[in-house]
Amino acid sequence: VNKVFFDVGLSLDGFLAGPNGGPRNPLGDGGLALHEWLFATATFREQHGEPGGEPVADDGVVRATFARTGAYVMGRRMFDEGEVVWPEDAPFRAPVFVLTRRARAPWPRKGGTTFHFVTTGIHDALARAREAAGGKDVRVAGGADTICQFLAAGLIDDFTLHTAPVLLGAGVRLFDDMVGHRLAVEQTATSPGALAAHAHYRVVRAS
Amino acid sequence: VNKVFFDVGLSLDGFLAGPNGGPRNPLGDGGLALHEWLFATATFREQHGEPGGEPVADDGVVRATFARTGAYVMGRRMFDEGEVVWPEDAPFRAPVFVLTRRARAPWPRKGGTTFHFVTTGIHDALARAREAAGGKDVRVAGGADTICQFLAAGLIDDFTLHTAPVLLGAGVRLFDDMVGHRLAVEQTATSPGALAAHAHYRVVRAS
Repeated sequence: VNKVFFDVGLSLDGFLAGPNGGPRNPLGDGGLALHEWLFATATFREQHGEPGGEPVADDGVVRATFARTGAYVMGRRMFDEGEVVWPEDAPFRAPVFVLTRRARAPWPRKGGTTFHFVTTGIHDALARAREAAGGKDVRVAGGADTICQFLAAGLIDDFTLHTAPVLLGAGVRLFDDMVGHRLAVEQTATSPGALAAHAHYRVVRAS
Repeated sequence: VNKVFFDVGLSLDGFLAGPNGGPRNPLGDGGLALHEWLFATATFREQHGEPGGEPVADDGVVRATFARTGAYVMGRRMFDEGEVVWPEDAPFRAPVFVLTRRARAPWPRKGGTTFHFVTTGIHDALARAREAAGGKDVRVAGGADTICQFLAAGLIDDFTLHTAPVLLGAGVRLFDDMVGHRLAVEQTATSPGALAAHAHYRVVRAS
């Protein structure tokens, strides 16, 4: 059965995005620094129609995540922020289920991405994403609040954190909405990386 | 010339210790989970007079840190919390310079640890530690506030973070006192680890 996971980049001080984020500033102030390692990878460059990119050790983990993903679930703020910057040939190449309160017709993009708008909550969005993913996995794309909703609901099987070598000092913390929740996880692997530290975790469930 | 560094364990949500810490609860609620990977290493067990320990990949990074350290600087709260739990044969095996407001005679322990009490601030403590360290490096042991004081003063050359697979949900964040400071660092290496993710950073100075 398909797994449900997230895969995000963080600063050393735990921020997923800088402060003052919004559609005109999608990663927040200083937030680009979180993803410099990613921009350098060949896989990212291919997805965004850019040539080449030097081979970096960090490419393997990006490629593996892209390969396992059959569908996405995404929060509305992340969609709103991305809608204005993603190219016509959007980088997901798979169905994306956007959590929203406003119904909207599916929005197909070039290259295999179609945005579907789900107004009936995370469980419905996940059910539709699971079905659309076929044998592949479902990635909860973000933002932080959506990821924490899925974590708190016990819906996440595993996750990957990419820790970038920068202190942002302010912004949106990935786990802000988990304050007060203790959660046991198991480190399943680390991946080689020259530009960031990549670690993989499995959520340990009470049986 | 000797380097000044710190080396600490963190939860996935950035906590260095759980909540409600103090001399009777030195790592705070749930804080033991941050160090389970460390307790499993042969190096830690040797330092604490315990036999064996299984060989884990994580041992190498502990051994390397211990080997490079010629002296320590430590905050008073960390000392107060440790004083009641460290064995007579304290685990540092080197001079430890404790930042405090109260003068106190040096306190030698078995096995090479001597605590010196410095009432004249971090620069003096560091100068004495550098001298005592000989050709080796100076480790700023903690707590979080002392580490941030050294970071903010531009005194840290490099650091190692061990990220343990647990969400604590509350406690003392390593970088709480760095809120509002953006800091550029460079990831210099990651170390193999089965039980935690180990990454090494160099502070990038404006030249």
